[in-house]
Amino acid sequence: MNKKRIGILTGGGDCPGLNGVIRGVVRAAVRRDWDVVGIEDGFDGFLHQEKCRLLSLEDVRGILPRGGTILGTTNRGNPFSFPIMREGKIELVDVSDEVVSRIELLGISALVVVGGDGTLKIALELMKRGVPIVGVPKTIDNDLLETDVTFGFNTALETATDALDKLHSTAESHHRVMVLEVMGRYAGWIALEAGIAGGADVILIPEIPYDIERVAQAIVERGRRGGRFSVIVAAEGAYPKGGSRVVKEAAGGKSVVERLGGVGEKISHELGGVLEMDVRVTVLGHLQRGGSPSTFDRCLSSRFGVQAVELIEAGSFGQMVCLKGRQIGAAPIEDAVRHLKLIDPDGALVRHAEELGIMLGR
Amino acid sequence: MNKKRIGILTGGGDCPGLNGVIRGVVRAAVRRDWDVVGIEDGFDGFLHQEKCRLLSLEDVRGILPRGGTILGTTNRGNPFSFPIMREGKIELVDVSDEVVSRIELLGISALVVVGGDGTLKIALELMKRGVPIVGVPKTIDNDLLETDVTFGFNTALETATDALDKLHSTAESHHRVMVLEVMGRYAGWIALEAGIAGGADVILIPEIPYDIERVAQAIVERGRRGGRFSVIVAAEGAYPKGGSRVVKEAAGGKSVVERLGGVGEKISHELGGVLEMDVRVTVLGHLQRGGSPSTFDRCLSSRFGVQAVELIEAGSFGQMVCLKGRQIGAAPIEDAVRHLKLIDPDGALVRHAEELGIMLGR
Amino acid sequence: MNKKRIGILTGGGDCPGLNGVIRGVVRAAVRRDWDVVGIEDGFDGFLHQEKCRLLSLEDVRGILPRGGTILGTTNRGNPFSFPIMREGKIELVDVSDEVVSRIELLGISALVVVGGDGTLKIALELMKRGVPIVGVPKTIDNDLLETDVTFGFNTALETATDALDKLHSTAESHHRVMVLEVMGRYAGWIALEAGIAGGADVILIPEIPYDIERVAQAIVERGRRGGRFSVIVAAEGAYPKGGSRVVKEAAGGKSVVERLGGVGEKISHELGGVLEMDVRVTVLGHLQRGGSPSTFDRCLSSRFGVQAVELIEAGSFGQMVCLKGRQIGAAPIEDAVRHLKLIDPDGALVRHAEELGIMLGR
Amino acid sequence: MNKKRIGILTGGGDCPGLNGVIRGVVRAAVRRDWDVVGIEDGFDGFLHQEKCRLLSLEDVRGILPRGGTILGTTNRGNPFSFPIMREGKIELVDVSDEVVSRIELLGISALVVVGGDGTLKIALELMKRGVPIVGVPKTIDNDLLETDVTFGFNTALETATDALDKLHSTAESHHRVMVLEVMGRYAGWIALEAGIAGGADVILIPEIPYDIERVAQAIVERGRRGGRFSVIVAAEGAYPKGGSRVVKEAAGGKSVVERLGGVGEKISHELGGVLEMDVRVTVLGHLQRGGSPSTFDRCLSSRFGVQAVELIEAGSFGQMVCLKGRQIGAAPIEDAVRHLKLIDPDGALVRHAEELGIMLGR
Repeated sequence: MNKKRIGILTGGGDCPGLNGVIRGVVRAAVRRDWDVVGIEDGFDGFLHQEKCRLLSLEDVRGILPRGGTILGTTNRGNPFSFPIMREGKIELVDVSDEVVSRIELLGISALVVVGGDGTLKIALELMKRGVPIVGVPKTIDNDLLETDVTFGFNTALETATDALDKLHSTAESHHRVMVLEVMGRYAGWIALEAGIAGGADVILIPEIPYDIERVAQAIVERGRRGGRFSVIVAAEGAYPKGGSRVVKEAAGGKSVVERLGGVGEKISHELGGVLEMDVRVTVLGHLQRGGSPSTFDRCLSSRFGVQAVELIEAGSFGQMVCLKGRQIGAAPIEDAVRHLKLIDPDGALVRHAEELGIMLGR
Repeated sequence: MNKKRIGILTGGGDCPGLNGVIRGVVRAAVRRDWDVVGIEDGFDGFLHQEKCRLLSLEDVRGILPRGGTILGTTNRGNPFSFPIMREGKIELVDVSDEVVSRIELLGISALVVVGGDGTLKIALELMKRGVPIVGVPKTIDNDLLETDVTFGFNTALETATDALDKLHSTAESHHRVMVLEVMGRYAGWIALEAGIAGGADVILIPEIPYDIERVAQAIVERGRRGGRFSVIVAAEGAYPKGGSRVVKEAAGGKSVVERLGGVGEKISHELGGVLEMDVRVTVLGHLQRGGSPSTFDRCLSSRFGVQAVELIEAGSFGQMVCLKGRQIGAAPIEDAVRHLKLIDPDGALVRHAEELGIMLGR
Repeated sequence: MNKKRIGILTGGGDCPGLNGVIRGVVRAAVRRDWDVVGIEDGFDGFLHQEKCRLLSLEDVRGILPRGGTILGTTNRGNPFSFPIMREGKIELVDVSDEVVSRIELLGISALVVVGGDGTLKIALELMKRGVPIVGVPKTIDNDLLETDVTFGFNTALETATDALDKLHSTAESHHRVMVLEVMGRYAGWIALEAGIAGGADVILIPEIPYDIERVAQAIVERGRRGGRFSVIVAAEGAYPKGGSRVVKEAAGGKSVVERLGGVGEKISHELGGVLEMDVRVTVLGHLQRGGSPSTFDRCLSSRFGVQAVELIEAGSFGQMVCLKGRQIGAAPIEDAVRHLKLIDPDGALVRHAEELGIMLGR
Repeated sequence: MNKKRIGILTGGGDCPGLNGVIRGVVRAAVRRDWDVVGIEDGFDGFLHQEKCRLLSLEDVRGILPRGGTILGTTNRGNPFSFPIMREGKIELVDVSDEVVSRIELLGISALVVVGGDGTLKIALELMKRGVPIVGVPKTIDNDLLETDVTFGFNTALETATDALDKLHSTAESHHRVMVLEVMGRYAGWIALEAGIAGGADVILIPEIPYDIERVAQAIVERGRRGGRFSVIVAAEGAYPKGGSRVVKEAAGGKSVVERLGGVGEKISHELGGVLEMDVRVTVLGHLQRGGSPSTFDRCLSSRFGVQAVELIEAGSFGQMVCLKGRQIGAAPIEDAVRHLKLIDPDGALVRHAEELGIMLGR
């Protein structure tokens, strides 16, 4: 028989809402009487027979409120530069031929790739090798072009804002400066929006190099007006004026971040030397990727899954589903990965934050 | 001295995020060295001297995470049709002259009106009487035109989805049909989006009259496929095919809703007669208006407040702040209150819900 | 082979933490290399072959944070008075012989019965028929003797308190009286403790018949002192002085509750006639049984599960696991079901509530 | 006039529920027509005139759901060893005479001291100097004797368990070992109870020195049984077998903790060298002290506040309010601070954890 069969995989860091996409794809496919093959652990799954399995309605039951991905994911596993152990050393090998032939063998006529920047670039390369692909954008940092937001970002914001609410009570009770380090190596979306929502006094983002003396001055002035504590949010990629920004290396898509210290510790150390107040740091880290997706993310990820199936049905390959305003649409994957979506230091969001009295490090 | 002085009031039902708007207005105004006068309990406050007071930064400290409105609000208090007790009876009197002269007396050169459909229509009438007004849209039901969404809606969705998560465990453990009645007299936005996010099996909205037999049939079929329970979300304005829809009366902007029974009870009764399963109803009611605003609503309401001040500065009266995609903008109040924003039964959102396997009553 | 095999069932209304008990029993049993048979839908499961299945570690993976019970439950299904359809009519039949022989056939040498008052009484009867039973107390209402609290109660309190927090913003913004009706037909534990935690102004419990005039008076006096709103919590079994209390019928353990109106509606109606304030009711209902169990309930239910296995190992049948202070212990089931654990109107909890300025209806 | 006047202060690290105690004390005192003086920032407040102020019902309105303490607190400020800047250097000076005379001057006839081990020891010393004191136990770590638990602990558990839930999705999706470092320098209560509730695979507490090889082995074995990820909770005071335990110094009550690395980093480093899995650490830190208190903590702290007033009324000085089972009682402060309340490595709680299949490092 000639039943249509599609594949789905999730790549890169995990993110609340991945299960919503998987469930949406399976539900919409089953209505069309299509088969869905789930590939585990990103592209890596194609290289291991036991990691490819049919997904039924039963497999996706109850997964919508669950964080993470039932398919597993990995930050490794680029088929064009795959780490293989040879004679005790890791070599990077091009295994894309094997992946393409495996896709054919499995009878997969279209592949849904759920991932960020890095994963979608790999998807584009596979497209060139003849694999019909539809992309679903995933980035907790919200730094992908061509979509207003993606799932996971809203949940991460909730987690970061909740942390700010919690730090506020300690800051206020102990008259301290509390620093919260949040995700965002290249773009400060989480820091800026959580900072606004969490009533932060200072927000430091990679798009605006900070002047630590001005930050200290702002805290002192706040103290004069009766504010005996301050809350600072810093994106992990924030850096001082004159310092060097975290950038993406060409090779491997890996970024250069010195983890020594971390930006939170650094700021704390710098401020501690200037201010006569206790300064304490909290690094939110992995908590931002976890948890049950918010309503917004459950709804968006479910619709993205359905839309991916609709794009496959329409034969619109090389497209990525996206959100524009309240509409779900599609855009070329190519346009989405051109460069990262950064915050405009002169844009309305930053201006609004400053109008609210928030200090942005400049 | 010639210091600018603006007024702000909140009208209609309360809504998470109102305090964010008030705080945003005060913070942006103080940066401009303007005065802000808070008017309590909507337009009603103009008629009582003690209900108008200057708002300082101190007054808005710590209110961002708090639900409700520090200014108070009321569903009554249309100055053009104001309820006054005369000789033991309530008469509706036009007190707009008094309101206008009070605004002048207070030295208010621009008024920020935060409200829904009804409140904004009153604002338009006051505009005609010479009061320079800027609107801020507020509707928990998300049924206002000219803005993608407003604050409060997202928080209400979280509350409704959380309720669905809770009902799921009971539905599953007891093999029951659980019905959740949510807000939405005219528009089913809360029911539809919370239903998608909460994994509902059936969603009933005012925009699609329901066929109870088909609903029952869907539940029976679901049982045959192994689903021994079902969860139904019904907007309070949902009604059966052939039944009569809740509509807005011309006069007073009041809607005609027979509260007898309520739609949840009605559906439960109808299904109970047909199905061999327990059917239980929960009416979510006021809980949807309460609680700490979500991150999205805190951010949006704060920015709306700032934007209102910027509109006043620019002299853009008769405008309402709004959200389009990720941009905060402005639109004529007139356009926003033309009619309610309903769900398109043939649109993408409904289609996606049906693709997810959700039964929409038809 | 002579491997020990124990059974487990959950009976009565569902409750957060049931899955924690099941998981605890399975994990502790597997360490002893015992088999566990899960019986679905309470005692009812014994009458249907397909409802008895072996439970492995895999079956209980990931269930700890989930509400409800993976085994299903039912409020029907007393084997000594079992509803059977004969000639179109429901007859109550004694099927206990069948249950006992089924237990023998399954090779179950000890049965863990998780349930409340009603279920545990049935367990005692089965004990007399020779089935070795260990009880695990379950009551969301906290009205079982011989244990300080049981799992589920704390989660229900969190839900009720969260609802009170939400109602506060509306009450305050609209200057209304908000009434929250919570569970508790015979005992007012949820109402009293959630009321204290949620800052209620009035708490009405079955243990103290209320005087509506005094309630109204308290609200009026509060208004005079500047409190323009009030929040009332009422247990569903609360009743007016001179009215009749909900009691348990001897036969069937069913209570007589007239659902017409409900206590919330009744109080609202009574107060609405006296006060010049809007009075609104919210019935929390099924939401109290749902949701992910709180930390306390997850910990307690897990330990109860383990303790049940330890009691079986020690041959301590007829005992029920319990919590005394911070110690997990055991008590005779017989003692636990003697009568319900009610609030002492002259005890410290009530006194403390009144010291906090809460009005208790008297 | 001869109105009774009592004082209240909060000392040591902040903790959810402090506001509940303050509110309880004020409400119960006002009913007796007593005055309450709030002393800010612990004992330090006695040395600054502006830090002592009368507390009215209005001052404590709405504070029950708020974390932290409206009175402020500090970890410094022992009047018997008070840090004073003299000629550019900090000297520790005995200022207790000044504190005692200040208490007399303010007309305070009884002092409510809310604090942990350190603060209560200071209170005892002041008692000897003639100040009538009632203690309220506060310790987020739950390591005070003579009370089953104190407020704040339950909220910290909720935060830690929520973090574990979040880490689970990432651990599972990425097949990683996730380590969560929680509070608990001397006692592992948070680690152990949150670990049980959060479904941890390994829990490391100060009371049981860990053997890192056995931990690694347990993770490997878990992998063999199909568990491709593991979640570890470590109390900050956990230490390896043969390593040295964090102890309290005699002088100043300060503990010796090398912050270099932290136990989470250490374990992660040790495991990373042995296992072929990614190991990631999250340090929960200050988040555990923050946030709105849980229902349990709101109820308990409110009752503690009332009980403190009742103890003053009864003249029971030198006593500390406490919880025994479900009863609020009192115990000599002296008994409570004798030594810390540690987990019994051979007790039921540890045994239950091990029965649940949790590895405790030994």
